[in-house]
Amino acid sequence: MEKKQFFEDYRIGHIRHSPARTITETDIVVHAGHTGDFSPHHMDAEYAKHTPFERRIAHGTMVFAFGIGLAAQSANNPGAFSSGYDRIRFVRPVFIGDTLKSRITIGDLKTMADNPDFGEVIEQIDVVNQKNETVLTASHVLMVERR
Amino acid sequence: MEKKQFFEDYRIGHIRHSPARTITETDIVVHAGHTGDFSPHHMDAEYAKHTPFERRIAHGTMVFAFGIGLAAQSANNPGAFSSGYDRIRFVRPVFIGDTLKSRITIGDLKTMADNPDFGEVIEQIDVVNQKNETVLTASHVLMVERR
Amino acid sequence: MEKKQFFEDYRIGHIRHSPARTITETDIVVHAGHTGDFSPHHMDAEYAKHTPFERRIAHGTMVFAFGIGLAAQSANNPGAFSSGYDRIRFVRPVFIGDTLKSRITIGDLKTMADNPDFGEVIEQIDVVNQKNETVLTASHVLMVERR
Amino acid sequence: MEKKQFFEDYRIGHIRHSPARTITETDIVVHAGHTGDFSPHHMDAEYAKHTPFERRIAHGTMVFAFGIGLAAQSANNPGAFSSGYDRIRFVRPVFIGDTLKSRITIGDLKTMADNPDFGEVIEQIDVVNQKNETVLTASHVLMVERR
Amino acid sequence: MEKKQFFEDYRIGHIRHSPARTITETDIVVHAGHTGDFSPHHMDAEYAKHTPFERRIAHGTMVFAFGIGLAAQSANNPGAFSSGYDRIRFVRPVFIGDTLKSRITIGDLKTMADNPDFGEVIEQIDVVNQKNETVLTASHVLMVERR
Amino acid sequence: MEKKQFFEDYRIGHIRHSPARTITETDIVVHAGHTGDFSPHHMDAEYAKHTPFERRIAHGTMVFAFGIGLAAQSANNPGAFSSGYDRIRFVRPVFIGDTLKSRITIGDLKTMADNPDFGEVIEQIDVVNQKNETVLTASHVLMVERR
Repeated sequence: MEKKQFFEDYRIGHIRHSPARTITETDIVVHAGHTGDFSPHHMDAEYAKHTPFERRIAHGTMVFAFGIGLAAQSANNPGAFSSGYDRIRFVRPVFIGDTLKSRITIGDLKTMADNPDFGEVIEQIDVVNQKNETVLTASHVLMVERR
Repeated sequence: MEKKQFFEDYRIGHIRHSPARTITETDIVVHAGHTGDFSPHHMDAEYAKHTPFERRIAHGTMVFAFGIGLAAQSANNPGAFSSGYDRIRFVRPVFIGDTLKSRITIGDLKTMADNPDFGEVIEQIDVVNQKNETVLTASHVLMVERR
Repeated sequence: MEKKQFFEDYRIGHIRHSPARTITETDIVVHAGHTGDFSPHHMDAEYAKHTPFERRIAHGTMVFAFGIGLAAQSANNPGAFSSGYDRIRFVRPVFIGDTLKSRITIGDLKTMADNPDFGEVIEQIDVVNQKNETVLTASHVLMVERR
Repeated sequence: MEKKQFFEDYRIGHIRHSPARTITETDIVVHAGHTGDFSPHHMDAEYAKHTPFERRIAHGTMVFAFGIGLAAQSANNPGAFSSGYDRIRFVRPVFIGDTLKSRITIGDLKTMADNPDFGEVIEQIDVVNQKNETVLTASHVLMVERR
Repeated sequence: MEKKQFFEDYRIGHIRHSPARTITETDIVVHAGHTGDFSPHHMDAEYAKHTPFERRIAHGTMVFAFGIGLAAQSANNPGAFSSGYDRIRFVRPVFIGDTLKSRITIGDLKTMADNPDFGEVIEQIDVVNQKNETVLTASHVLMVERR
Repeated sequence: MEKKQFFEDYRIGHIRHSPARTITETDIVVHAGHTGDFSPHHMDAEYAKHTPFERRIAHGTMVFAFGIGLAAQSANNPGAFSSGYDRIRFVRPVFIGDTLKSRITIGDLKTMADNPDFGEVIEQIDVVNQKNETVLTASHVLMVERR
């Protein structure tokens, strides 16, 4: 959903919620094939029985990409450019059948002396499961046009 | 490629190189469908003509997931657990036809007073294109078993 | 299966049956990614528990495309051109695990005063599940070469 | 984008526009594999050279499903239920490289004597390409909750 | 296309032709992800420039699976069971843009003293490209019900 | 995993083991869509109930391609060229949920009077399931550079 927003439109502490999606075995198989990461934690059910989680878990890169994809479905600002992400942490494993959604909180707003056309917006991303447990956290660093 | 390594086997400054892969239009279409992010920078060739890059670019989450997937193909330590990633930065855009590979440098090694069984390994990930330009950087934070 | 047929070869009331296929969770995930429709009825198992159907249902556009795809597998006339479809109706929901097939009945044949080279063939498409319940109906409007 | 709307919120003649997407060779290959329709018009470039269009064309069911998927991305009313579609017509062929979007016009609003809880909304769907030519038209029949 | 045939219905020298399909970059990317074989001959366009073929080639396992899949589309005998294949040979490389089809010749018919219910049918499979050059040959060993 | 080996580096009887992967319903659906083989043994759960195996089985071409893909993940010799495969046999059916891996044994080594630059290496491939039952056997014929 495209919606133009300027730096001045952002408010620290504002929260938005993404839609949710259920993680399927299909997603894990597709992610392995997409990225080439066929590690046994994700692809070998016999191996996974003997890990602490006792079953296959989702790839960390998939949980991250899905969390960001869900956030993009709820709002996409054509005046914002992603510089990157800080402090991605895999807080809990994600299993087949879990349902994930993203909560996006405006964490910080910074103007920059050397760039009056843009401001830096820090979005705190929390991906949570159906038990409302956080499975992944990250800080999204955005450059947003100023009015 | 599974290969067990202990914390004591890592050396600061050691570098390994992943295989390479060429980014295709297919990868971008698959990534949009996988994550639900159909933003016009990736999916709308007419829109993309009027952006600074003048053509579609790869999703940042795809460049990240491919860079990590390539790194996993060159070495996968079953005694290491990923805590997450620090300071992911999208340094340059990635276009259809670019060929990417990952260079992984051991950046830091830390023992932890409160956890004698594991050490922290920081891998510096640099994803480079066919012109040897860096397109993405990130720090991978790993917990690795000690001997 | 390509098989050339002229307008004069069609008979009102003639029925053919397609092969069958079982609808999988994979199909729904692929369809969401293919079309960009990640609506919670299809993708969010928690949301779906609270709908009248109590579980995820297949996309209407997927049931339609699969019904037509199954019909194409049983016969494909290179002398026929599809003008479109009339009165597509979603009669019953389709769930993961249902097995669908198409029954195609020649419903009507019309010659056209202004186009002596082609005749119009109306195929009535009924997509049925493993309990022989109709899940989708549609009329396919075909232009077919005359002898 | 979920947004609850009641029957009384709809206005005849109101128009909304979807995002756009470029049709790729990947989409056609995925659609063939998804539906099982490997007809040579879509999959055999040598055959397609000798057709009136001189190259492969997109499946009609794909153009339809993409047009509906694009419409769903711009607005999704959880209080509306799709009964089906009337008069789908394939107006022009769609080629690899075309960029499609949907224009949705409220065409008609009907109350029903025997069902006071719902009203019927007819959405006219026009899928257009980058030259603003219409490639597909359809009427979407929706049952929408009344206040 | 299902069509029941008994051992006695087969004739040595009988030839059938499959439909054709054009090999796309999508097919190669999907095959790599499906099988986990990301070898640089298939996935790294820079590497491929320096091979004798000067560009990426299709996986041998894909050419084989497509050749067999094309053959299955033209006829599928529910009274036949595949024992396996003899002497698969990769005669020529397959490139993106090539159009392949299969020619299936009944090569041999053998009754078996110890199994009066089945006969062995050898199908000679030749996969040819758009220049009518053979790219793959194989012998399919089938057990077929006797009358 | 690329690793250059010359003909003289191979030893008859040497065995290597691939990683393992669990066969999923997703893999079968993807293989049908990839190859166009939608035979009811793989895609129609109702039909499959009445076969000797009482459920859907994996495509033979998929078991073969996965077995070879797994072998390629454990070692890939850039100095070797595949001529093809001999005597592929489908020994047991493969079901959804089975976990497969490949065992590769050097079976034979032949020098060739007319080609002093290459030697022929025969790899015996055995694909086994989680009960250590062989499901597929094949002989891989490789041309390998001599020192």
